[in-house]
Amino acid sequence: MTDKLPTYKDIEQAALRIRGRAILTPLLENVQLNQQVGGRVFIKAECLQRTGSFKFRGAWNCISQLDPQINKAGVVAYSSGNHAQGVAAAAQLMGLPALIVMPEDTPEIKKANTKSYGAEVVTYDRARESREEIANHQAQRRGAVLVPPFEHFDIIAGQGTCGLEIAAQTTAQGIVLDHMLVNCSGGGLLAGIALALSENSPATRVHPVEPQGFDDYGRSLKSGKREKNEKSSGSICDALLTPAPGEMTFAMNKGRVGDGYAVSDAETEQAVRYAFDVLKLVIEPGGAVGLAAVLSGKIDVRCKCIGIIASGGNVDPASFARILVEAPQEGSK
Amino acid sequence: MTDKLPTYKDIEQAALRIRGRAILTPLLENVQLNQQVGGRVFIKAECLQRTGSFKFRGAWNCISQLDPQINKAGVVAYSSGNHAQGVAAAAQLMGLPALIVMPEDTPEIKKANTKSYGAEVVTYDRARESREEIANHQAQRRGAVLVPPFEHFDIIAGQGTCGLEIAAQTTAQGIVLDHMLVNCSGGGLLAGIALALSENSPATRVHPVEPQGFDDYGRSLKSGKREKNEKSSGSICDALLTPAPGEMTFAMNKGRVGDGYAVSDAETEQAVRYAFDVLKLVIEPGGAVGLAAVLSGKIDVRCKCIGIIASGGNVDPASFARILVEAPQEGSK
Repeated sequence: MTDKLPTYKDIEQAALRIRGRAILTPLLENVQLNQQVGGRVFIKAECLQRTGSFKFRGAWNCISQLDPQINKAGVVAYSSGNHAQGVAAAAQLMGLPALIVMPEDTPEIKKANTKSYGAEVVTYDRARESREEIANHQAQRRGAVLVPPFEHFDIIAGQGTCGLEIAAQTTAQGIVLDHMLVNCSGGGLLAGIALALSENSPATRVHPVEPQGFDDYGRSLKSGKREKNEKSSGSICDALLTPAPGEMTFAMNKGRVGDGYAVSDAETEQAVRYAFDVLKLVIEPGGAVGLAAVLSGKIDVRCKCIGIIASGGNVDPASFARILVEAPQEGSK
Repeated sequence: MTDKLPTYKDIEQAALRIRGRAILTPLLENVQLNQQVGGRVFIKAECLQRTGSFKFRGAWNCISQLDPQINKAGVVAYSSGNHAQGVAAAAQLMGLPALIVMPEDTPEIKKANTKSYGAEVVTYDRARESREEIANHQAQRRGAVLVPPFEHFDIIAGQGTCGLEIAAQTTAQGIVLDHMLVNCSGGGLLAGIALALSENSPATRVHPVEPQGFDDYGRSLKSGKREKNEKSSGSICDALLTPAPGEMTFAMNKGRVGDGYAVSDAETEQAVRYAFDVLKLVIEPGGAVGLAAVLSGKIDVRCKCIGIIASGGNVDPASFARILVEAPQEGSK
């Protein structure tokens, strides 16, 4: 790993770039949730972000720096769906073409949204093909710029703006978060937020949350080296199935973040249902694992202030309807 | 009508009372919605309010002024469901008993939530019985205080706090709303917001939005006298079926607010679906009529700044799932 790692100043620069482009999403608190868990839970509602997930932050921070005259061939990205939409929307704003490599089994809403931002979509088989290879090949062939989902200086710095906002929003309320749970796949959001909070809220312990069976980040933090997942599919958290921590993100997160948490798909579905019942937010499964960790008691939040991220809301209506009908209503009022 | 009407100062007083109890809900903007309608739409997300609707504002403003020593018999209210939850939650906070008279056909989630705040629920037949009579009888029998859903000085002043926040939030962004659409049933929220904006944003024209067939307020504003609806049920907007404008609210709104808009149930369902697809908010049908008016082109928002209210999010999961599966996805990306 030879790439330079972003610093706090790079997040500040990114914040200047995304101003007026990304949404300053609200940090929400819900009385009922607080009462139920016996602590204060602050929900950074990135499902309300442009393109329905935090991914626009990094994509815009990266793509807005391209010179449209030089980079006429545009951008190429691989993504399970949320980065795809962020890149497609950012490229459209810059007037650049975008080609996105997405898994065949990604939710339809993510494919449709990506195309709606003017991007070309190519699908691949998550189990048999390498998305990196396909994307690299396409980028070379076109002379386009590859915009990776997390292993990139500007992407990590861009996602870090979410952490800057959380720090400012909690400070404005006179609150210090004891723990900040970050839904984690490749670790870009985790790295950005942990870096931002290390400067602006050093007393806050940051933790990744992952689906059970896809807890490569948590296991890697424990062993001290980058561990892989055994499976490449098989969780409803389609956004969180990256096979292993990124090299850059792991270098940043190792030693800086605390233990990881892993939640079952059933716990995640209950969290999605709870968000509907109580929070009145549409959160996709991968965006609800932090809430699931809190609701399932994986982390003890009693008498504490806990931050979580509703990192995305791009879920197919049929899948959401199924969860509403099937997932038990738990502790809701 | 002999009751004193609230003034702007009463809303300011209410704002002091609800501080720290009610949520200061965000005023959201969505790039995709703006692009689609060619204007700027600002969404006051009262579905994120305590109890899932704006109704907690008025209920708390009223009930928090009761002396628990004197009013040991507590409160009685009649409500289609959102006021019920607001009253139940406010009474619970004050340590007072609450009895709520609700229509038999009200969504289960509204009955269950009301009970979960410790209230006793009595149901009645919307078509054959008078909820006012039942509630009055119960209040007298118990020696309890009746907390009406809109015909009340403190209720109207409390709902007006929503307007104060909208004015402050738009001013902070350097924006003046051209129009403010307010989902309307008895007219309490409309009266409160129109009063608040008449002082803090006098250039903003306020309008009620109602379901077609239940547009008593719009017709009353046109004729200059309080008109009744022909039907008492038959719209998916269960929160907006009050038979006629309130006397107090109409006295306040007449001459102050602009023409009303009426939307079909199909347009409302599409708005609920749109809120899921694009806004990532759970909005109940009655809370989505303002959005429906914008999306259906009932009001021309091109090159304008329009405020709408997502006034509530208490919708049964089965109803929501049905809308997701049946309502067409329209103009969404």
